[in-house]
Amino acid sequence: MDIKAVSRLQEYVEFIENSLKNYSLSDKLGLQKSVAEAMDYSLEAGGKRIRPVLVLEFCRICGGDYKKAAAPACALEMIHTFSLIHDDLPCMDDDDLRRGKPSCHKKYGEAAAVLAGDALAIRPFQIIADDKYLNDHIKVRLISELSCSSGPEGMIGGQIIDMENEQRSSVDEANLRQMYALKTGALIKTACVMGCVSASADEEKIKYAEEYAENLGLAFQIIDDILDVTSTENVLGKPVGSDNEENKTTFVTLFGIEMAREKAMEYTEKALKIADKFENGYFLKELTEYLLVRNY
Amino acid sequence: MDIKAVSRLQEYVEFIENSLKNYSLSDKLGLQKSVAEAMDYSLEAGGKRIRPVLVLEFCRICGGDYKKAAAPACALEMIHTFSLIHDDLPCMDDDDLRRGKPSCHKKYGEAAAVLAGDALAIRPFQIIADDKYLNDHIKVRLISELSCSSGPEGMIGGQIIDMENEQRSSVDEANLRQMYALKTGALIKTACVMGCVSASADEEKIKYAEEYAENLGLAFQIIDDILDVTSTENVLGKPVGSDNEENKTTFVTLFGIEMAREKAMEYTEKALKIADKFENGYFLKELTEYLLVRNY
Repeated sequence: MDIKAVSRLQEYVEFIENSLKNYSLSDKLGLQKSVAEAMDYSLEAGGKRIRPVLVLEFCRICGGDYKKAAAPACALEMIHTFSLIHDDLPCMDDDDLRRGKPSCHKKYGEAAAVLAGDALAIRPFQIIADDKYLNDHIKVRLISELSCSSGPEGMIGGQIIDMENEQRSSVDEANLRQMYALKTGALIKTACVMGCVSASADEEKIKYAEEYAENLGLAFQIIDDILDVTSTENVLGKPVGSDNEENKTTFVTLFGIEMAREKAMEYTEKALKIADKFENGYFLKELTEYLLVRNY
Repeated sequence: MDIKAVSRLQEYVEFIENSLKNYSLSDKLGLQKSVAEAMDYSLEAGGKRIRPVLVLEFCRICGGDYKKAAAPACALEMIHTFSLIHDDLPCMDDDDLRRGKPSCHKKYGEAAAVLAGDALAIRPFQIIADDKYLNDHIKVRLISELSCSSGPEGMIGGQIIDMENEQRSSVDEANLRQMYALKTGALIKTACVMGCVSASADEEKIKYAEEYAENLGLAFQIIDDILDVTSTENVLGKPVGSDNEENKTTFVTLFGIEMAREKAMEYTEKALKIADKFENGYFLKELTEYLLVRNY
Protein backbone atom coordinates (compact mmCIF):
# COMPACT_ATOMS: atom_id res chain seq x y z
CA MET A 1 0.00 0.00 0.00
CA ASP A 2 1.44 3.38 -0.95
CA ILE A 3 1.50 6.34 1.44
CA LYS A 4 -1.57 8.00 -0.07
CA ALA A 5 -3.59 4.83 0.36
CA VAL A 6 -2.33 4.28 3.91
CA SER A 7 -3.39 7.78 4.81
CA ARG A 8 -6.86 7.24 3.37
CA LEU A 9 -7.20 3.95 5.24
CA GLN A 10 -6.19 5.72 8.46
CA GLU A 11 -8.72 8.46 7.78
CA TYR A 12 -11.49 5.88 7.33
CA VAL A 13 -10.53 3.88 10.42
CA GLU A 14 -10.36 7.01 12.55
CA PHE A 15 -13.77 8.10 11.29
CA ILE A 16 -15.18 4.66 12.14
CA GLU A 17 -13.70 4.63 15.65
CA ASN A 18 -15.10 8.10 16.36
CA SER A 19 -18.50 7.22 14.94
CA LEU A 20 -18.67 4.05 17.05
CA LYS A 21 -17.90 6.17 20.11
CA ASN A 22 -20.70 8.56 19.20
CA TYR A 23 -23.13 5.65 19.04
CA SER A 24 -22.04 4.32 22.44
CA LEU A 25 -24.84 4.19 24.99
CA SER A 26 -22.56 4.14 28.03
CA ASP A 27 -23.50 7.67 29.12
CA LYS A 28 -27.12 7.32 28.06
CA LEU A 29 -28.37 4.32 29.99
CA GLY A 30 -29.51 4.22 33.61
CA LEU A 31 -29.67 1.07 35.67
CA GLN A 32 -28.84 -1.08 32.68
CA LYS A 33 -25.62 0.69 31.72
CA SER A 34 -23.47 -2.42 32.23
CA VAL A 35 -24.79 -3.79 28.94
CA ALA A 36 -23.38 -0.72 27.19
CA GLU A 37 -19.99 -1.39 28.79
CA ALA A 38 -19.94 -4.96 27.47
CA MET A 39 -21.03 -3.74 24.01
CA ASP A 40 -18.28 -1.09 23.97
CA TYR A 41 -15.70 -3.56 25.23
CA SER A 42 -16.24 -5.91 22.31
CA LEU A 43 -16.63 -3.11 19.76
CA GLU A 44 -13.39 -1.52 20.93
CA ALA A 45 -11.48 -4.80 20.79
CA GLY A 46 -10.59 -3.58 17.33
CA GLY A 47 -9.86 -5.74 14.38
CA LYS A 48 -9.13 -4.24 11.00
CA ARG A 49 -12.60 -2.68 10.47
CA ILE A 50 -12.58 -4.15 6.96
CA ARG A 51 -16.36 -4.19 6.58
CA PRO A 52 -17.06 -0.56 7.56
CA VAL A 53 -14.04 0.57 5.49
CA LEU A 54 -15.65 -1.12 2.47
CA VAL A 55 -18.95 0.67 3.20
CA LEU A 56 -17.20 4.06 3.25
CA GLU A 57 -15.06 3.37 0.18
CA PHE A 58 -17.95 2.14 -1.97
CA CYS A 59 -19.95 5.18 -0.90
CA ARG A 60 -17.07 7.41 -1.99
CA ILE A 61 -16.36 5.73 -5.34
CA CYS A 62 -20.07 5.90 -6.16
CA GLY A 63 -19.86 9.66 -5.73
CA GLY A 64 -21.23 9.91 -2.19
CA ASP A 65 -19.91 11.71 0.87
CA TYR A 66 -18.49 8.91 3.02
CA LYS A 67 -19.06 10.94 6.17
CA LYS A 68 -22.77 10.47 5.63
CA ALA A 69 -22.40 6.68 5.68
CA ALA A 70 -21.43 6.43 9.36
CA ALA A 71 -24.72 4.72 10.23
CA PRO A 72 -24.50 1.79 7.78
CA ALA A 73 -20.75 1.42 8.42
CA CYS A 74 -21.13 1.22 12.19
CA ALA A 75 -24.30 -0.87 11.95
CA LEU A 76 -22.39 -3.48 9.98
CA GLU A 77 -19.46 -3.49 12.42
CA MET A 78 -21.95 -4.01 15.28
CA ILE A 79 -23.53 -7.00 13.52
CA HIS A 80 -20.06 -8.45 12.93
CA THR A 81 -19.16 -7.92 16.59
CA PHE A 82 -22.44 -9.49 17.78
CA SER A 83 -21.61 -12.60 15.75
CA LEU A 84 -18.13 -12.80 17.30
CA ILE A 85 -19.47 -12.49 20.87
CA HIS A 86 -22.00 -15.30 20.35
CA ASP A 87 -19.48 -17.40 18.39
CA ASP A 88 -17.09 -17.31 21.35
CA LEU A 89 -19.71 -18.56 23.86
CA PRO A 90 -18.99 -21.87 25.63
CA CYS A 91 -21.87 -23.59 23.81
CA MET A 92 -20.49 -22.38 20.46
CA ASP A 93 -16.72 -22.26 19.75
CA ASP A 94 -15.85 -21.80 23.42
CA ASP A 95 -13.05 -19.30 22.90
CA ASP A 96 -11.55 -17.56 25.92
CA LEU A 97 -9.62 -15.05 23.85
CA ARG A 98 -10.59 -12.72 21.05
CA ARG A 99 -7.87 -10.61 19.46
CA GLY A 100 -5.60 -11.29 22.42
CA LYS A 101 -8.09 -10.07 25.03
CA PRO A 102 -10.56 -12.05 27.17
CA SER A 103 -13.67 -12.73 25.11
CA CYS A 104 -16.86 -10.98 26.19
CA HIS A 105 -18.22 -13.84 28.31
CA LYS A 106 -14.84 -14.29 30.03
CA LYS A 107 -14.88 -10.63 30.98
CA TYR A 108 -18.56 -10.10 31.84
CA GLY A 109 -20.01 -13.57 32.32
CA GLU A 110 -22.06 -15.69 29.96
CA ALA A 111 -25.49 -14.15 30.54
CA ALA A 112 -24.20 -10.62 30.02
CA ALA A 113 -22.39 -11.74 26.86
CA VAL A 114 -25.57 -13.27 25.43
CA LEU A 115 -27.41 -10.00 26.12
CA ALA A 116 -24.60 -7.76 24.84
CA GLY A 117 -24.57 -9.80 21.64
CA ASP A 118 -28.36 -9.50 21.37
CA ALA A 119 -28.10 -5.75 21.88
CA LEU A 120 -25.50 -5.49 19.10
CA ALA A 121 -27.80 -7.49 16.81
CA ILE A 122 -30.70 -5.08 17.30
CA ARG A 123 -29.15 -1.64 17.75
CA PRO A 124 -27.78 -1.49 14.17
CA PHE A 125 -31.32 -1.24 12.82
CA GLN A 126 -32.11 1.60 15.20
CA ILE A 127 -28.97 3.45 14.16
CA ILE A 128 -29.93 3.28 10.49
CA ALA A 129 -33.61 4.08 11.10
CA ASP A 130 -32.76 7.14 13.24
CA ASP A 131 -29.97 8.50 11.03
CA LYS A 132 -30.23 12.16 10.14
CA TYR A 133 -28.48 12.06 6.76
CA LEU A 134 -30.11 9.22 4.84
CA ASN A 135 -33.61 9.39 3.37
CA ASP A 136 -36.34 6.85 4.13
CA HIS A 137 -36.00 5.01 0.83
CA ILE A 138 -32.27 4.46 1.36
CA LYS A 139 -32.81 3.47 4.99
CA VAL A 140 -35.33 0.79 4.06
CA ARG A 141 -33.03 -0.64 1.41
CA LEU A 142 -30.06 -0.66 3.81
CA ILE A 143 -32.10 -2.40 6.50
CA SER A 144 -33.41 -4.94 4.01
CA GLU A 145 -29.84 -5.69 2.86
CA LEU A 146 -28.37 -5.87 6.34
CA SER A 147 -31.10 -8.00 7.88
CA CYS A 148 -31.11 -10.43 4.97
CA SER A 149 -27.34 -10.87 4.89
CA SER A 150 -26.95 -11.25 8.65
CA GLY A 151 -30.05 -13.38 9.33
CA PRO A 152 -30.92 -17.03 8.66
CA GLU A 153 -30.58 -16.53 4.89
CA GLY A 154 -27.09 -15.11 5.43
CA MET A 155 -24.51 -15.12 8.21
CA ILE A 156 -26.56 -17.00 10.81
CA GLY A 157 -27.41 -19.59 8.16
CA GLY A 158 -23.69 -20.03 7.49
CA GLN A 159 -23.02 -20.51 11.19
CA ILE A 160 -25.64 -23.25 11.30
CA ILE A 161 -24.07 -25.05 8.33
CA ASP A 162 -20.61 -24.74 9.90
CA MET A 163 -21.94 -26.17 13.16
CA GLU A 164 -23.67 -29.07 11.45
CA ASN A 165 -20.64 -29.83 9.28
CA GLU A 166 -18.79 -30.80 12.45
CA GLN A 167 -21.12 -33.79 12.69
CA ARG A 168 -20.89 -34.69 9.01
CA SER A 169 -18.45 -37.43 7.96
CA SER A 170 -17.57 -35.56 4.78
CA VAL A 171 -18.17 -32.08 3.39
CA ASP A 172 -18.14 -31.51 -0.36
CA GLU A 173 -17.09 -28.42 -2.31
CA ALA A 174 -20.66 -27.19 -2.82
CA ASN A 175 -21.32 -27.31 0.90
CA LEU A 176 -18.04 -25.57 1.72
CA ARG A 177 -18.68 -22.80 -0.80
CA GLN A 178 -22.21 -22.28 0.47
CA MET A 179 -21.02 -22.19 4.07
CA TYR A 180 -18.31 -19.62 3.34
CA ALA A 181 -20.61 -17.58 1.10
CA LEU A 182 -23.08 -17.22 3.94
CA LYS A 183 -20.88 -17.20 7.05
CA THR A 184 -18.33 -14.63 5.92
CA GLY A 185 -19.19 -13.72 2.31
CA ALA A 186 -22.65 -12.31 2.97
CA LEU A 187 -21.50 -9.47 5.24
CA ILE A 188 -18.61 -8.54 2.94
CA LYS A 189 -21.01 -8.32 0.02
CA THR A 190 -23.43 -6.28 2.09
CA ALA A 191 -20.65 -3.89 3.09
CA CYS A 192 -19.97 -3.09 -0.56
CA VAL A 193 -23.65 -2.89 -1.48
CA MET A 194 -24.54 -0.69 1.51
CA GLY A 195 -21.80 1.72 0.50
CA CYS A 196 -23.29 1.98 -3.01
CA VAL A 197 -26.85 2.34 -1.68
CA SER A 198 -25.79 5.10 0.72
CA ALA A 199 -24.56 7.04 -2.31
CA SER A 200 -27.74 6.33 -4.30
CA ALA A 201 -25.65 4.44 -6.86
CA ASP A 202 -27.31 2.94 -9.94
CA GLU A 203 -27.98 -0.80 -10.24
CA GLU A 204 -25.04 -1.38 -12.56
CA LYS A 205 -22.59 -0.16 -9.94
CA ILE A 206 -24.31 -2.26 -7.28
CA LYS A 207 -23.86 -5.28 -9.50
CA TYR A 208 -20.14 -4.59 -9.90
CA ALA A 209 -19.87 -4.14 -6.14
CA GLU A 210 -21.48 -7.52 -5.60
CA GLU A 211 -19.15 -9.23 -8.06
CA TYR A 212 -16.15 -7.55 -6.51
CA ALA A 213 -17.24 -8.65 -3.04
CA GLU A 214 -17.82 -12.24 -4.06
CA ASN A 215 -14.30 -12.54 -5.43
CA LEU A 216 -12.78 -10.67 -2.49
CA GLY A 217 -14.63 -12.89 -0.02
CA LEU A 218 -13.60 -16.11 -1.74
CA ALA A 219 -9.95 -15.11 -2.11
CA PHE A 220 -9.87 -13.97 1.51
CA GLN A 221 -11.29 -17.24 2.74
CA ILE A 222 -8.97 -19.41 0.65
CA ILE A 223 -5.95 -17.43 1.86
CA ASP A 224 -7.15 -17.93 5.45
CA ASP A 225 -7.27 -21.67 4.82
CA ILE A 226 -3.77 -21.64 3.31
CA LEU A 227 -2.29 -19.56 6.13
CA ASP A 228 -3.75 -21.93 8.71
CA VAL A 229 -1.43 -24.58 7.24
CA THR A 230 1.63 -22.62 6.13
CA SER A 231 2.03 -19.72 8.51
CA THR A 232 3.50 -19.57 11.99
CA GLU A 233 1.61 -18.51 15.09
CA ASN A 234 3.87 -15.48 15.34
CA VAL A 235 3.07 -14.16 11.89
CA LEU A 236 -0.62 -14.98 12.05
CA GLY A 237 -1.27 -13.79 15.62
CA LYS A 238 -3.43 -16.83 16.30
CA PRO A 239 -2.81 -20.58 16.58
CA VAL A 240 -2.05 -22.30 13.26
CA GLY A 241 -3.14 -25.76 12.26
CA SER A 242 -6.44 -25.47 14.11
CA ASP A 243 -8.44 -26.52 11.04
CA ASN A 244 -6.39 -29.69 10.71
CA GLU A 245 -6.70 -30.50 14.42
CA GLU A 246 -10.46 -30.15 14.22
CA ASN A 247 -10.48 -32.28 11.07
CA LYS A 248 -12.19 -29.49 9.19
CA THR A 249 -12.80 -29.44 5.46
CA THR A 250 -11.19 -26.36 3.91
CA PHE A 251 -10.11 -25.27 0.43
CA VAL A 252 -6.70 -26.73 1.26
CA THR A 253 -7.99 -30.17 2.27
CA LEU A 254 -10.21 -30.20 -0.84
CA PHE A 255 -7.65 -29.01 -3.43
CA GLY A 256 -4.19 -29.11 -1.88
CA ILE A 257 -2.06 -26.04 -1.23
CA GLU A 258 -0.88 -25.46 -4.78
CA MET A 259 -4.30 -25.41 -6.37
CA ALA A 260 -5.70 -23.39 -3.49
CA ARG A 261 -2.99 -20.79 -4.16
CA GLU A 262 -3.92 -20.68 -7.83
CA LYS A 263 -7.57 -20.19 -6.97
CA ALA A 264 -6.77 -17.42 -4.51
CA MET A 265 -4.74 -15.69 -7.20
CA GLU A 266 -7.52 -16.09 -9.73
CA TYR A 267 -10.17 -14.55 -7.45
CA THR A 268 -7.81 -11.76 -6.41
CA GLU A 269 -7.23 -10.85 -10.04
CA LYS A 270 -10.94 -10.90 -10.76
CA ALA A 271 -11.60 -8.59 -7.81
CA LEU A 272 -8.89 -6.18 -8.99
CA LYS A 273 -10.31 -6.17 -12.51
CA ILE A 274 -13.75 -5.22 -11.22
CA ALA A 275 -12.28 -2.52 -8.97
CA ASP A 276 -10.87 -1.06 -12.21
CA LYS A 277 -14.39 -0.43 -13.47
CA PHE A 278 -14.84 2.31 -10.89
CA GLU A 279 -13.47 5.62 -12.15
CA ASN A 280 -11.72 6.50 -8.91
CA GLY A 281 -11.06 2.90 -7.80
CA TYR A 282 -7.38 3.49 -7.03
CA PHE A 283 -7.68 3.08 -3.27
CA LEU A 284 -10.03 0.12 -3.63
CA LYS A 285 -7.33 -1.66 -5.65
CA GLU A 286 -4.66 -0.82 -3.10
CA LEU A 287 -6.97 -2.05 -0.34
CA THR A 288 -7.72 -5.27 -2.24
CA GLU A 289 -4.02 -6.02 -2.62
CA TYR A 290 -3.40 -5.15 1.01
CA LEU A 291 -6.11 -7.58 2.11
CA LEU A 292 -5.30 -10.36 -0.30
CA VAL A 293 -1.63 -10.30 -1.15
CA ARG A 294 -0.51 -11.75 2.18
CA ASN A 295 2.20 -14.34 2.77
CA TYR A 296 0.57 -17.16 0.95
CA MET B 1 -65.61 -11.29 27.03
CA ASP B 2 -68.83 -11.33 25.01
CA ILE B 3 -69.33 -13.50 21.94
CA LYS B 4 -68.67 -10.71 19.48
CA ALA B 5 -65.37 -9.92 21.16
CA VAL B 6 -64.37 -13.58 21.36
CA SER B 7 -65.00 -13.93 17.66
CA ARG B 8 -62.87 -10.87 16.87
CA LEU B 9 -60.07 -12.19 19.07
CA GLN B 10 -60.22 -15.52 17.25
CA GLU B 11 -60.12 -13.74 13.91
CA TYR B 12 -57.00 -11.84 14.95
CA VAL B 13 -55.24 -14.89 16.36
CA GLU B 14 -55.99 -16.92 13.24
CA PHE B 15 -54.68 -14.11 11.06
CA ILE B 16 -51.49 -13.97 13.13
CA GLU B 17 -50.95 -17.75 12.99
CA ASN B 18 -51.38 -17.75 9.23
CA SER B 19 -49.13 -14.76 8.75
CA LEU B 20 -46.40 -16.34 10.87
CA LYS B 21 -46.64 -19.45 8.68
CA ASN B 22 -46.27 -17.30 5.57
CA TYR B 23 -43.09 -15.80 6.98
CA SER B 24 -41.63 -19.22 7.79
CA LEU B 25 -38.37 -19.95 6.02
CA SER B 26 -38.60 -23.72 6.37
CA ASP B 27 -39.23 -24.30 2.64
CA LYS B 28 -36.93 -21.50 1.54
CA LEU B 29 -33.58 -22.41 3.07
CA GLY B 30 -31.06 -24.91 1.76
CA LEU B 31 -28.36 -26.48 3.89
CA GLN B 32 -29.22 -24.25 6.83
CA LYS B 33 -32.90 -25.17 7.02
CA SER B 34 -32.61 -26.60 10.54
CA VAL B 35 -32.46 -23.04 11.89
CA ALA B 36 -35.88 -22.40 10.34
CA GLU B 37 -37.23 -25.49 12.10
CA ALA B 38 -36.03 -24.26 15.48
CA MET B 39 -37.46 -20.78 14.77
CA ASP B 40 -40.84 -22.26 13.79
CA TYR B 41 -40.85 -24.60 16.79
CA SER B 42 -40.58 -21.73 19.24
CA LEU B 43 -42.92 -19.45 17.29
CA GLU B 44 -45.55 -22.17 17.13
CA ALA B 45 -45.29 -22.93 20.86
CA GLY B 46 -48.14 -20.46 21.04
CA GLY B 47 -48.93 -18.24 23.92
CA LYS B 48 -51.77 -15.78 23.80
CA ARG B 49 -50.32 -13.60 21.00
CA ILE B 50 -51.18 -10.56 23.11
CA ARG B 51 -48.62 -8.28 21.50
CA PRO B 52 -49.54 -8.90 17.86
CA VAL B 53 -53.25 -8.72 18.77
CA LEU B 54 -52.62 -5.25 20.19
CA VAL B 55 -50.84 -4.24 16.97
CA LEU B 56 -53.82 -5.31 14.86
CA GLU B 57 -56.43 -3.77 17.17
CA PHE B 58 -54.69 -0.39 17.41
CA CYS B 59 -54.32 -0.39 13.64
CA ARG B 60 -58.06 -1.02 13.32
CA ILE B 61 -59.24 1.54 15.88
CA CYS B 62 -57.03 4.14 14.24
CA GLY B 63 -58.92 3.54 11.00
CA GLY B 64 -56.43 1.20 9.32
CA ASP B 65 -56.91 -2.17 7.65
CA TYR B 66 -55.51 -4.64 10.17
CA LYS B 67 -54.68 -7.11 7.42
CA LYS B 68 -52.01 -4.72 6.23
CA ALA B 69 -50.30 -4.80 9.63
CA ALA B 70 -49.18 -8.44 9.41
CA ALA B 71 -45.53 -7.42 9.16
CA PRO B 72 -45.29 -5.32 12.35
CA ALA B 73 -47.52 -7.79 14.25
CA CYS B 74 -45.40 -10.82 13.33
CA ALA B 75 -42.14 -8.89 13.72
CA LEU B 76 -43.08 -8.09 17.29
CA GLU B 77 -44.04 -11.68 18.06
CA MET B 78 -40.68 -12.83 16.68
CA ILE B 79 -38.80 -10.39 18.92
CA HIS B 80 -40.83 -11.62 21.90
CA THR B 81 -40.06 -15.24 20.99
CA PHE B 82 -36.34 -14.52 20.54
CA SER B 83 -36.26 -13.09 24.07
CA LEU B 84 -37.96 -16.20 25.47
CA ILE B 85 -35.50 -18.55 23.72
CA HIS B 86 -32.47 -16.71 25.09
CA ASP B 87 -34.10 -16.26 28.52
CA ASP B 88 -34.49 -20.04 28.82
CA LEU B 89 -30.81 -20.78 28.08
CA PRO B 90 -28.79 -22.54 30.82
CA CYS B 91 -26.67 -19.42 31.39
CA MET B 92 -29.83 -17.32 31.81
CA ASP B 93 -32.94 -18.66 33.60
CA ASP B 94 -32.10 -22.28 32.72
CA ASP B 95 -35.68 -23.37 32.01
CA ASP B 96 -36.26 -26.80 30.48
CA LEU B 97 -39.91 -26.14 29.73
CA ARG B 98 -41.70 -23.33 27.97
CA ARG B 99 -45.49 -23.45 27.80
CA GLY B 100 -45.41 -27.13 28.70
CA LYS B 101 -43.05 -28.11 25.89
CA PRO B 102 -39.27 -28.59 25.93
CA SER B 103 -37.61 -25.20 25.59
CA CYS B 104 -35.72 -24.53 22.35
CA HIS B 105 -32.27 -25.53 23.66
CA LYS B 106 -33.69 -28.73 25.19
CA LYS B 107 -35.11 -29.68 21.82
CA TYR B 108 -32.34 -28.52 19.46
CA GLY B 109 -29.27 -28.04 21.64
CA GLU B 110 -27.80 -24.89 23.08
CA ALA B 111 -25.85 -23.67 20.06
CA ALA B 112 -28.85 -24.03 17.75
CA ALA B 113 -31.03 -22.20 20.29
CA VAL B 114 -28.61 -19.28 20.49
CA LEU B 115 -28.65 -19.05 16.67
CA ALA B 116 -32.43 -19.50 16.35
CA GLY B 117 -32.87 -16.68 18.89
CA ASP B 118 -30.42 -14.52 16.97
CA ALA B 119 -32.30 -15.24 13.75
CA LEU B 120 -35.59 -14.20 15.39
CA ALA B 121 -33.95 -10.98 16.59
CA ILE B 122 -32.88 -9.99 13.08
CA ARG B 123 -35.57 -11.31 10.76
CA PRO B 124 -38.29 -8.96 12.12
CA PHE B 125 -36.48 -5.98 10.59
CA GLN B 126 -36.28 -7.73 7.23
CA ILE B 127 -39.99 -8.52 7.35
CA ILE B 128 -40.90 -4.90 7.93
CA ALA B 129 -38.37 -3.54 5.42
CA ASP B 130 -39.58 -5.92 2.68
CA ASP B 131 -43.31 -5.53 3.34
CA LYS B 132 -45.45 -4.79 0.29
CA TYR B 133 -48.21 -2.77 1.99
CA LEU B 134 -46.43 -0.20 4.13
CA ASN B 135 -44.68 2.87 2.73
CA ASP B 136 -41.04 3.73 3.46
CA HIS B 137 -41.86 6.43 5.97
CA ILE B 138 -44.02 4.08 8.02
CA LYS B 139 -41.45 1.29 7.76
CA VAL B 140 -38.67 3.49 9.11
CA ARG B 141 -40.80 4.63 12.04
CA LEU B 142 -41.84 1.04 12.85
CA ILE B 143 -38.23 -0.14 12.75
CA SER B 144 -37.12 2.76 14.92
CA GLU B 145 -39.83 1.92 17.48
CA LEU B 146 -39.19 -1.80 17.47
CA SER B 147 -35.40 -1.62 17.66
CA CYS B 148 -35.49 0.97 20.43
CA SER B 149 -38.02 -0.90 22.56
CA SER B 150 -36.37 -4.30 22.16
CA GLY B 151 -32.72 -3.21 22.40
CA PRO B 152 -30.51 -2.04 25.27
CA GLU B 153 -32.74 0.99 25.90
CA GLY B 154 -35.75 -1.32 26.17
CA MET B 155 -36.33 -5.04 26.69
CA ILE B 156 -32.68 -6.13 26.74
CA GLY B 157 -31.95 -3.34 29.20
CA GLY B 158 -34.72 -4.67 31.44
CA GLN B 159 -33.25 -8.16 31.27
CA ILE B 160 -29.88 -6.80 32.39
CA ILE B 161 -31.47 -5.00 35.37
CA ASP B 162 -33.39 -8.15 36.31
CA MET B 163 -30.20 -10.20 36.14
CA GLU B 164 -28.24 -7.73 38.24
CA ASN B 165 -31.03 -7.40 40.81
CA GLU B 166 -30.42 -11.03 41.72
CA GLN B 167 -27.07 -9.94 43.14
CA ARG B 168 -28.47 -6.86 44.91
CA SER B 169 -29.29 -7.12 48.61
CA SER B 170 -32.35 -4.92 48.19
CA VAL B 171 -34.37 -3.57 45.28
CA ASP B 172 -36.42 -0.38 45.70
CA GLU B 173 -39.66 0.62 44.00
CA ALA B 174 -37.95 2.86 41.43
CA ASN B 175 -35.70 0.01 40.33
CA LEU B 176 -38.60 -2.46 40.16
CA ARG B 177 -40.73 -0.08 38.09
CA GLN B 178 -37.85 0.66 35.73
CA MET B 179 -37.10 -3.05 35.33
CA TYR B 180 -40.73 -3.91 34.56
CA ALA B 181 -41.15 -0.88 32.30
CA LEU B 182 -38.24 -2.06 30.16
CA LYS B 183 -38.41 -5.84 30.41
CA THR B 184 -42.10 -6.30 29.67
CA GLY B 185 -43.62 -2.81 29.36
CA ALA B 186 -41.54 -1.63 26.41
CA LEU B 187 -42.78 -4.28 23.97
CA ILE B 188 -46.42 -3.84 25.06
CA LYS B 189 -46.15 -0.12 24.46
CA THR B 190 -44.49 -0.71 21.11
CA ALA B 191 -47.29 -3.09 20.12
CA CYS B 192 -49.88 -0.34 20.61
CA VAL B 193 -47.74 2.34 18.97
CA MET B 194 -46.85 0.15 15.96
CA GLY B 195 -50.56 -0.49 15.41
CA CYS B 196 -51.23 3.27 15.34
CA VAL B 197 -48.23 3.97 13.09
CA SER B 198 -49.32 1.25 10.64
CA ALA B 199 -52.61 3.14 10.27
CA SER B 200 -50.84 6.51 9.89
CA ALA B 201 -52.55 7.69 13.08
CA ASP B 202 -52.00 11.23 14.34
CA GLU B 203 -49.71 11.98 17.28
CA GLU B 204 -52.62 12.47 19.70
CA LYS B 205 -53.80 8.91 19.15
CA ILE B 206 -50.26 7.61 19.51
CA LYS B 207 -50.04 9.40 22.86
CA TYR B 208 -53.27 7.78 24.05
CA ALA B 209 -51.97 4.40 22.90
CA GLU B 210 -48.80 4.92 24.92
CA GLU B 211 -50.73 5.87 28.04
CA TYR B 212 -53.05 2.92 27.61
CA ALA B 213 -50.11 0.57 27.20
CA GLU B 214 -48.30 1.88 30.27
CA ASN B 215 -51.31 1.23 32.46
CA LEU B 216 -52.03 -2.14 30.86
CA GLY B 217 -48.41 -3.21 31.32
CA LEU B 218 -48.29 -2.15 34.96
CA ALA B 219 -51.61 -3.75 35.86
CA PHE B 220 -50.60 -6.93 34.05
CA GLN B 221 -47.30 -7.14 35.90
CA ILE B 222 -48.82 -6.48 39.33
CA ILE B 223 -51.46 -9.15 38.73
CA ASP B 224 -48.71 -11.57 37.74
CA ASP B 225 -46.96 -10.83 41.03
CA ILE B 226 -50.20 -11.36 42.99
CA LEU B 227 -51.05 -14.60 41.21
CA ASP B 228 -47.59 -15.96 41.94
CA VAL B 229 -48.58 -15.81 45.63
CA THR B 230 -52.32 -16.52 45.63
CA SER B 231 -53.01 -18.87 42.74
CA THR B 232 -52.56 -22.61 42.47
CA GLU B 233 -50.32 -24.32 39.96
CA ASN B 234 -53.41 -25.83 38.33
CA VAL B 235 -55.11 -22.51 37.68
CA LEU B 236 -51.93 -20.72 36.63
CA GLY B 237 -50.44 -23.47 34.47
CA LYS B 238 -46.99 -22.85 35.91
CA PRO B 239 -45.37 -23.26 39.35
CA VAL B 240 -46.56 -20.73 41.95
CA GLY B 241 -44.46 -19.17 44.66
CA SER B 242 -41.35 -19.06 42.47
CA ASP B 243 -40.77 -15.35 43.18
CA ASN B 244 -40.77 -16.00 46.90
CA GLU B 245 -38.44 -18.98 46.60
CA GLU B 246 -35.98 -16.90 44.61
CA ASN B 247 -36.32 -14.11 47.16
CA LYS B 248 -37.38 -11.72 44.41
CA THR B 249 -38.66 -8.22 44.98
CA THR B 250 -42.14 -7.84 43.47
CA PHE B 251 -45.07 -5.46 43.87
CA VAL B 252 -46.39 -7.89 46.48
CA THR B 253 -43.23 -7.94 48.60
CA LEU B 254 -43.03 -4.14 48.36
CA PHE B 255 -46.69 -3.29 49.12
CA GLY B 256 -48.41 -6.40 50.42
CA ILE B 257 -51.25 -8.16 48.62
CA GLU B 258 -54.04 -5.75 49.50
CA MET B 259 -52.33 -2.63 48.30
CA ALA B 260 -51.04 -4.47 45.22
CA ARG B 261 -54.66 -5.39 44.41
CA GLU B 262 -55.70 -1.76 44.75
CA LYS B 263 -52.91 -0.64 42.46
CA ALA B 264 -53.81 -3.27 39.86
CA MET B 265 -57.42 -2.06 39.97
CA GLU B 266 -56.35 1.55 39.64
CA TYR B 267 -54.17 0.90 36.55
CA THR B 268 -56.86 -1.30 35.01
CA GLU B 269 -59.43 1.47 35.36
CA LYS B 270 -57.05 3.99 33.88
CA ALA B 271 -56.41 1.72 30.89
CA LEU B 272 -60.16 1.24 30.37
CA LYS B 273 -60.74 4.99 30.54
CA ILE B 274 -58.16 5.62 27.85
CA ALA B 275 -59.58 2.84 25.67
CA ASP B 276 -62.83 4.84 25.84
CA LYS B 277 -61.20 7.71 24.01
CA PHE B 278 -61.11 5.63 20.83
CA GLU B 279 -64.39 5.87 18.92
CA ASN B 280 -64.63 2.16 18.21
CA GLY B 281 -62.72 1.00 21.29
CA TYR B 282 -65.32 -1.57 22.31
CA PHE B 283 -63.18 -4.62 21.62
CA LEU B 284 -60.13 -3.00 23.18
CA LYS B 285 -62.07 -2.59 26.44
CA GLU B 286 -63.26 -6.19 26.32
CA LEU B 287 -59.70 -7.31 25.66
CA THR B 288 -58.37 -5.18 28.52
CA GLU B 289 -60.82 -6.73 30.95
CA TYR B 290 -60.05 -10.19 29.61
CA LEU B 291 -56.33 -9.64 30.18
CA LEU B 292 -56.59 -7.89 33.51
CA VAL B 293 -59.66 -9.08 35.36
CA ARG B 294 -58.21 -12.43 36.29
CA ASN B 295 -58.54 -14.27 39.58
CA TYR B 296 -56.71 -11.78 41.70
